Parts: sequence; structure tokens; C-alpha cells
Amino acid sequence: MKHITKADDGHAHLTISADREPIETVEPGETFSVETYDYVGDILDEGTRMEDVWGTDELDDNINPVTGPIRVEGATPGDALAVEIVDIDLPDRGVINVFPNFGGLEASVFNLAEPSAPNTTFCEIDDGVVSYPTERGEVLEFPAHPQIGTIGTAEKHESVYSVKPHDHGGNMDCKDVTIGNTVYLPVDVEGGYLHLGDCHAAQGDGEICGISVEVPAVVTLRIDVLEDYQMAWPRIESDDEIMVVAAARPAENAAKLAYKELIGWLVDEYGFDETDAYQLCSAVGRARLAQLVNPTYTVAAKFPKELL
Amino acid sequence: MKHITKADDGHAHLTISADREPIETVEPGETFSVETYDYVGDILDEGTRMEDVWGTDELDDNINPVTGPIRVEGATPGDALAVEIVDIDLPDRGVINVFPNFGGLEASVFNLAEPSAPNTTFCEIDDGVVSYPTERGEVLEFPAHPQIGTIGTAEKHESVYSVKPHDHGGNMDCKDVTIGNTVYLPVDVEGGYLHLGDCHAAQGDGEICGISVEVPAVVTLRIDVLEDYQMAWPRIESDDEIMVVAAARPAENAAKLAYKELIGWLVDEYGFDETDAYQLCSAVGRARLAQLVNPTYTVAAKFPKELL
Amino acid sequence: MKHITKADDGHAHLTISADREPIETVEPGETFSVETYDYVGDILDEGTRMEDVWGTDELDDNINPVTGPIRVEGATPGDALAVEIVDIDLPDRGVINVFPNFGGLEASVFNLAEPSAPNTTFCEIDDGVVSYPTERGEVLEFPAHPQIGTIGTAEKHESVYSVKPHDHGGNMDCKDVTIGNTVYLPVDVEGGYLHLGDCHAAQGDGEICGISVEVPAVVTLRIDVLEDYQMAWPRIESDDEIMVVAAARPAENAAKLAYKELIGWLVDEYGFDETDAYQLCSAVGRARLAQLVNPTYTVAAKFPKELL
Amino acid sequence: MKHITKADDGHAHLTISADREPIETVEPGETFSVETYDYVGDILDEGTRMEDVWGTDELDDNINPVTGPIRVEGATPGDALAVEIVDIDLPDRGVINVFPNFGGLEASVFNLAEPSAPNTTFCEIDDGVVSYPTERGEVLEFPAHPQIGTIGTAEKHESVYSVKPHDHGGNMDCKDVTIGNTVYLPVDVEGGYLHLGDCHAAQGDGEICGISVEVPAVVTLRIDVLEDYQMAWPRIESDDEIMVVAAARPAENAAKLAYKELIGWLVDEYGFDETDAYQLCSAVGRARLAQLVNPTYTVAAKFPKELL
Repeated sequence: MKHITKADDGHAHLTISADREPIETVEPGETFSVETYDYVGDILDEGTRMEDVWGTDELDDNINPVTGPIRVEGATPGDALAVEIVDIDLPDRGVINVFPNFGGLEASVFNLAEPSAPNTTFCEIDDGVVSYPTERGEVLEFPAHPQIGTIGTAEKHESVYSVKPHDHGGNMDCKDVTIGNTVYLPVDVEGGYLHLGDCHAAQGDGEICGISVEVPAVVTLRIDVLEDYQMAWPRIESDDEIMVVAAARPAENAAKLAYKELIGWLVDEYGFDETDAYQLCSAVGRARLAQLVNPTYTVAAKFPKELL
Repeated sequence: MKHITKADDGHAHLTISADREPIETVEPGETFSVETYDYVGDILDEGTRMEDVWGTDELDDNINPVTGPIRVEGATPGDALAVEIVDIDLPDRGVINVFPNFGGLEASVFNLAEPSAPNTTFCEIDDGVVSYPTERGEVLEFPAHPQIGTIGTAEKHESVYSVKPHDHGGNMDCKDVTIGNTVYLPVDVEGGYLHLGDCHAAQGDGEICGISVEVPAVVTLRIDVLEDYQMAWPRIESDDEIMVVAAARPAENAAKLAYKELIGWLVDEYGFDETDAYQLCSAVGRARLAQLVNPTYTVAAKFPKELL
Repeated sequence: MKHITKADDGHAHLTISADREPIETVEPGETFSVETYDYVGDILDEGTRMEDVWGTDELDDNINPVTGPIRVEGATPGDALAVEIVDIDLPDRGVINVFPNFGGLEASVFNLAEPSAPNTTFCEIDDGVVSYPTERGEVLEFPAHPQIGTIGTAEKHESVYSVKPHDHGGNMDCKDVTIGNTVYLPVDVEGGYLHLGDCHAAQGDGEICGISVEVPAVVTLRIDVLEDYQMAWPRIESDDEIMVVAAARPAENAAKLAYKELIGWLVDEYGFDETDAYQLCSAVGRARLAQLVNPTYTVAAKFPKELL
Repeated sequence: MKHITKADDGHAHLTISADREPIETVEPGETFSVETYDYVGDILDEGTRMEDVWGTDELDDNINPVTGPIRVEGATPGDALAVEIVDIDLPDRGVINVFPNFGGLEASVFNLAEPSAPNTTFCEIDDGVVSYPTERGEVLEFPAHPQIGTIGTAEKHESVYSVKPHDHGGNMDCKDVTIGNTVYLPVDVEGGYLHLGDCHAAQGDGEICGISVEVPAVVTLRIDVLEDYQMAWPRIESDDEIMVVAAARPAENAAKLAYKELIGWLVDEYGFDETDAYQLCSAVGRARLAQLVNPTYTVAAKFPKELL
């Protein structure tokens, strides 16, 4: 099985871009693995906490590195990549933190008051359980839910910061980008140029403090190329649901764009009457408020497969 | 068991107000039932579809009637009502529709283009299953999930339209206001003055077309009075989660207000350190995007009881 | 000339409501004067600063009192009031302040950090000039611009807090509600039931700290009744411009609703082609970002009369 | 005087990027001129209307080209460019149009209804007057106000679409970027890498249909380098006002970010107490709602120089 390392020169970047040479080419249907950095380039440990690197170039030059570009043989503009997430292998430790002037309840970009202090909490991960040590001395345990935070294909013109979610994927921070699911991403340049990174061991809806339980990881993927497959926003398929992930501000626009694309999908691919699709989404649709902290917010709109 | 009818003169209103006489007084701990109208005062049937009443006074004078005020003995300003939803008895038919110039994907308040046409779809409800007849001739079946769309207490000064969600509850349209859960609402006037209506047999997240599967219902409640219980937004407790429902535009503000109140609840009542509460909500919090179509949007932020 | 005092029992209220008896009836075309309280019921002076009353019932029971209801003879539902602002007589002192947890740059409803401290600054007003004493010891002078912050008619069902701007006017905080201009407000109940208060000696666009240079005042008005005059949002006419003031969150929705109504006005009353009206607003329209601190934000969209 | 043409190979681009070679280097203090394309690469004329090219590659490959990069000798990261707009030479014709699915009142990205039809209107420009021919046969005249719609410096990592406004300038579409004013832009890469285009002969606040009276132009500039000059958002200085232009969605965030930066400017450079600066912006600040149609919205917050 092909294995793509992250540490080689030129294998990780702060933008998703078509301007660099691919670090690897994969065949449609081939299973391969990719190493990813955590949200700050793996620079944190007990001796180097967020409190130590906040405001330094060491931190600024390591924000959300993504491994890529990975070229998919035969993918041409107008196609889509169907990226099956075969596995996400977690390490034995993750980290969650608070940044000053960042996070959903900080809002201090607008605030004359003082921002919060930085904080760092390391969590052990063992056998699918995350252990969070609290300030009052307990350890709280909850199930790990492995997830890829950032995954996307290159745009034709822009080199886009990897912290931005957009119509080619990017930093969607959506819990449904997980083992067993398939993510559909548009192809704008020959080969698609996939990039990924920013894995999570656990994430709450909204990612409200701005950070999840963040981990480096080894991700196993298998990619198919769908010829001439058009979509306005990334799609996800699980065993039970079809989903659309849209990104916008304010958050209602992300939800509305996701539902609009989902309704179009129901009409075009599954033969629903448009008014029925609209009313049924209003009766049985589910939505995930994925994150409210990135440059645009992401919402996933979902429809149950058993009604298709 | 006390039974409060809806049809008596003065039992249903278009506002939630402290200015009217109570239609009934209940004791704390007493179980009682209340009849509620559907979202348009039960005026629709096969012979009177939305297409027939759209734009008429008959419709305008019947938007979202709520049954009340119900006075709770002993409730005084500064207290809270803990409203346990014992049962919601559904009828054998519900209705869902599309209004011109309304609904999440219409947005035609801003649009120079033509609005959508009105539409009405009646659904059978039997033994916990909703049957939706599609335009293409199938019947789609999905589970009923009984829910109270509008429930709230009176504000001291304002008489608030029942279509508005706000910090006293109102038109929250949140699927978690359901059988077995307890809703906490603030008391601003002696007796609290509870009003309710607008029950749903099923609702999708976002209520994206503006309407759920709408029903008249008979609701069974039991209310306790919590003395001197302060909260910024309505709270809900289920077997598994504690939740806060906030209302605002844009939608991210509803989510942020809900999480902020939830974090305060974790700190004040359960002894969490504030930064831990913030980070844990970012790691394991859940959110429901309840609706995106009312005068303000509602989001429920949730925390698992097993970590309390 | 009829003079309506504010201090009589029942002449000032915290809501705009059709449920109270009128305090006066005026004839169409009659000139009359009205006394108004300042934004906190005239309770502040050198001995009682915001720092002293913040968080007390004395403050909470005096937020934005409006004088009314004033009944206009002959106004019936479906009509509009054309309220000409003949004069606004300013006192010799105004006040501006900062509230904790309020104002455009505070945002602390969402913030875990500490809010700003309260502050009070009194400004002398003399011969049309406002004198602002700074912390560093200078006095800055700028022209007074007298303005009515809150003016509105009653809604049929709701009793609306006077701090809210909405489609009947209310707390628009728009600098164009000034001497010489005419404000058009809808009539929903017999007599219209006008209320006003919250005058300003000067206001910046956005009213960014939440407060203007606030004054009690004596306002002179003359009201005409326009029969069967429909509008979605309040309108203003100056010597040079026609304007629409809409209120919504987020702010772009207020601007879009205002422009939509303005375009409709250009088409219906002035005979413009709709696409021309749209393009001309995009080429020569002006907008005032009136305030960003009330429960909904207000924007005035404007079109030059010389192109009518 | 150096003259930079637009038509040479590699002189106009759809992104603002540090990845290309400069097309020219200018000295600080040197006056020079630059040719710019209009908003669609000058492809429209009587024989080629928007109705003809809508949805074609010819249009898609010509959206908002900017001339550049122009390298400024001596500009190093951490500096700012002070770009004085000496002149904007307008042609004798401009164009305004409506696009389907674009513009403030279309909102059809969310709409199930049909979008508006495309439209094109050519306007003569003569001696400072724009003549707009209406559908009903009149010609409306209004003053030309020459303006640069898009002007910005390169970011270190991203190659940003020229249609986006951001903290390096870009598609601000702000009427105050006009003759006689100076625009301050950050330097992130050696030489600054200035790009500009998208001039307007007239623009309304909000640019509500999405398009201004659009023109190719010849722009005359003189640039100074301010050493080690930090700012969060572009600044503008006119004879009467200092201004900050911020970009965000929703629109209130753009206004709040602009006012926050303006207050910081008043405190840091002009010695104001922070609370005074905040209150004075609330008393005398002006705001321009520049545009509500680009990927983020722009607002300029302004303070009068006579109070500095």
C-alpha cells in the first residue's frame, strides 16, 4: 500500500493550491495512506504549550498544515472525487486549547475588553476513549470519534488558506468526515490535487471554543473518479444518510445553501418533485451545525436514505 | 384530571400576554391536559386548502393561536416553571405546506423575482407513523415525533406575537420540546401565565420550508415551581442531556448565546471550571439547529448528563 | 397650540401599545408640541451618574419612555400618518455614556471576558453647538443635529417595547428623523396611536457605543392623514431625498429590505421601470447605517429627488 | 511619467498574488499612470451585451481583471503603502447591468423561484456627467464620481481572487477610493505587489444591483512607503476625514471591525482616551455602507479631521 509521509520537504503547506507539483499520484480504486500534521504542525508538547508559543512566528508558520497535493490519475475538470475514508489511525494523545481573540464566545475582534488567556489541555487517547483531565482534578472520559478536519481539492485560480472552508472542501470541521463515509469533492484542475490534515479525536457541534481534541494521524483513503459530476458544495454519504456541507456567513446562509443543494440532489438524482423535496426536508431533514469559528461557518444538511 | 379546552371564548390568542385573565389556575405538581389549535387555527381541510385562504383575513386572523394564559399557583417573579411534558396526543392527520414569500429557501422578501406558489399536503398519522403522499404517487412513511412548537410564559410589559421565539420561550419550534422532557421557563408575572400551541407530528432541523407536519393536539403537562431560579434562556432536560434554547439572528448568535448559557449552567450548578466547560462543549457538545424561518432563529446547545 | 406634557400620570410608557387610552387627540393639519423624556427617563444628573444606577430597578423601570398614545382624528387602518417635524427644542445639556454588556464593540453577551465599565459624560449644548469634555481635559465642539430617536404608531395585536425598531417605526435612531423632514408611519388601529421620545442632540452612524448625545426635548409636529396608503416600512421625505427606513438583523437585510421598498416606491409612485430603478439605486442611491445596537438594526436607503 | 499598459501579456490577472513577476517597479514619490480593464475585461459593447455572454467561458475568464503586480522599491514586510490617487481618467462610456443570481435583491442563491433576466445599459459620460437612458425613453443625468473599485497588495501565502475584499484591500468598491484621497495598504511581501482595476464612473451605497457604472480607466498614482506601519484594515484619508474600510459578513461585523480599528487609530496616533474615542464615534462618526454584493461586505467608518 502506498504510504505518503508528511515530513518530506514540500509535503505540507498552509494553502491548498494547484501551483505546486504533486507529492504523489494515486490510481482510482487504489487504497493508500497519508500522514497528517495536527492543527499547529505538531509543535505542542508538555514543554511547549500554547501559552509559550502564542504570538510567535513559530506558531504563525504552523497553522493548519495540510499534506498534498495528491494527484488522482484520470481526474479531469468537471469530474468529482469520491473519497472513501477507510481508516483514521489516532495517536495516544490529543490537545485542546483556548486562544486569546479566537473562538465562538470570545468575539474579541470586536471587543474593547481584555481577551481570554491562552490555555492548553492534553488528553490521553486509548482504545477509543478520550480522557480529559479537569482543573478540579477529575478525569472525564468520552468516546473518540476520529475525523478529518480539513480535506479539499485545488481551485483553478486561487491558492486558498487551509483554514478556510469553501466549495472545494477545505477546513469544514464536520464530524461526518469520518471512517466509513465517502466525501465527494469537485475537480477543477487535472488530477484534482487533494490536500488533507487537521484530524480530530473528538469535536463538539459548533466547535465552540475554536479547537477540537486535535491530533496528528495516519489516514487511509480510496478514491474513485466520477466523470462529469456537478455539485455546488461538497457531499458526504454514510450508510444511513446523504449530506451536503456548505460554508457561509452568517450561519443560516450555510444551512440554506446546504438544503438548497440537497433538494437539487433529491430532484435531479432521485426523481423527487421539488415541492415534495422541500417539504420533506422540512419534516425529516437533519442538520449538523459543524463549526462557528472558521472564516466561514459550515452546516451539513442531511436526508435519510430509507426515504430515497 | 383538569382539562383545558381551546374552543371557549377567550381561550386562544395570537399573543402571549400578561394583560388577560387566566383561563385556568393549576397547582404545582398537578397533572392536567390542554387542547391546542394547529398553526392556522384548524381552518384547513380538503375543501379549504392553503391555496384557497392565502392572503385572506380568515388566514391572517388565525396565525399560530396559543391556548392560555394558564396561571400556576405560587409562581412569583424570579421563579421558574419546570414544565414536564407528560404526553402529546396526536390526531390522525397533519398538514404541511409552502407559503409564497416564506420559508428558508424562498427569501423573496428581498427578491424582485416571482415567489413560489402555495401548496398543501395532508399526511395521515397512524400508530406513530406519518404517511406523506408524494406528487409522483408514492406514500413515504416516517416515524411521528410529537412536539410542542410554541410554549412560553408572559413578559411583564410586552404582549408578544406567538410566532416569535424569545427568552420566555414562545415559538421555539425545537424538536426537543417533546414527551418525557422538562422545559424550564422564567416567571416574570405572578402566576407565570403559560401559553401553548402549534404542535408538530414531525419536524426537520431548520424547519426549512417554514412548516412542519402541523397538528392540533391534546397536551398533558405537570408543572413545578422552582423558587428564585435565574436563567437567561429557556432550558430543557431529557434523560440524557441538559440543553439551552436561545433565539437570535443571525443563527450563529443563537448558538453562541445558547452555549454561553450552557457553560454558565455547567459552572454555576455543576461546579465546572469555566475554561474546562468551554473546551468540553467544544469537544462533546451537541447543537440542534431548530428553525431558520421565524422572526428570530433558535438553536439548542446540549451537554451529555453522563459527564456531569 | 396644543401642548402635551410628559409628566402627567399615564403620559409616558415603556411600550408602544393600542391598549391604553389616548392622552390627547389632534386634528389633521394641526400644529402641536409634545414633551419627551430622554433615553433613561431624565434620571441622570451630576449626582446620579450611570455608574450609580447601573443594575438597579430605578434604571430598569426608566428605559426609553415614550410619550403617548396621541390619537389622530380620522386616521383609520390602512391609512398612513405623514408626520412633519416642525421643530425639536433642545435643552442646554445632553448625556452620552457606555453601558457594560451593551454597544457595538462590547459584544459581551457572547463573551467570557469581563465587560467594560459604565461611564457617563455630560455635554453642554448652546446655540446649536455641542461641547464634549474629554478625559484629557480638552473640550471638543461639534454642531448639534436635533433628532427624534423613537417615534412610532401602535400595532394591532402586540404591545411592543419602545427600544425596538420595526415596521411601525419605534426606536429607529435615524439621523434623518429631523427638523423639516416628514416621516410616514402606518395606521393599524383607529387613530394611529402615535408615541415618541428618545431625542438626540447628535448621533453618529451606527450609534456604535449604543448611546447618542441624549436629551429630553419639546417636539413640534403637524400630522396629515394619507388615506389608504400602503407601505412595508416607514418612509421619510426631505427637501432633497426620498428614503425608506427598514429594521432587521443582520444589517444587510435591513439595507436590502429598505432598497426593495424604495424600488417599489420608485416603480409604483414615480413610474420607473423596475430594472432601471434597481440599477439607478446601484448607481446613485445613498444609504445611512443608522444604528447597530438595538434589537434589530436600521438602515435608510435614499434616492435623490432631482432624478424623480 | 511611467505609463503601465494593461494589454501586454501578463499584465492583467484574476487574482492578487505574490507568485508572479512584477510588471513594473516604481520609486516612492514617483507619479505614474496605470491602465485598467473594466469589471468584465472590456468585452461588452453594443454587439456583445451581457445577455449574449452570460454563462459563457468568455465572461467567466474575464471577471474583474486587475493590472499588476506593481513593485514599490524599498517596501518591506511590516511597512504600509500610502497610495495617493492623483487622477482617474474616465472614458466616454460606461456600462451597468443586472446578472441573474447576483445582486443584493436577487438572493437567488437561496431561491427555488426563477432568477431575474440579464440586462445591459450603456451610459454616456461627458464632462463629468453620466447620462443614463431609461426604458421609458428619458435620459437621466447625474454627476460622475470617478473611483477605483479594486486596489490591493499581495498576501504572503494566498493568491486571492480579485473579486474579494479583505484586509489587503481588494474589491472594496468604496466610493471614497477617489481622486485626491490617499489609501493605506499593508505590505506583506518585499515590494508590496500592488494590483488595481474595476473603476467606476458612479456607485450607489451598497452597490445594490451588484454593479456600478463600470469603466476602463487610466489611473494616476503616487506612492509613499511608511516604515513599520501596522494596521488591521485599509485606511483612507481625505481632506476632511480619516477612514477605515473593513470587510466581513454579516455587514454589522464590517462596521464594527472598521469602528474598532478607527478607535484604535484615534487612541494610538491622536492620543484620545479609549472611552472618549468610542463615545465620540457614537456621537459624530460617519459610516459608508460601501457594498453588499461581494464575497464579504465593506463598510467605511469615518471621523472628522477637525476634531483631531
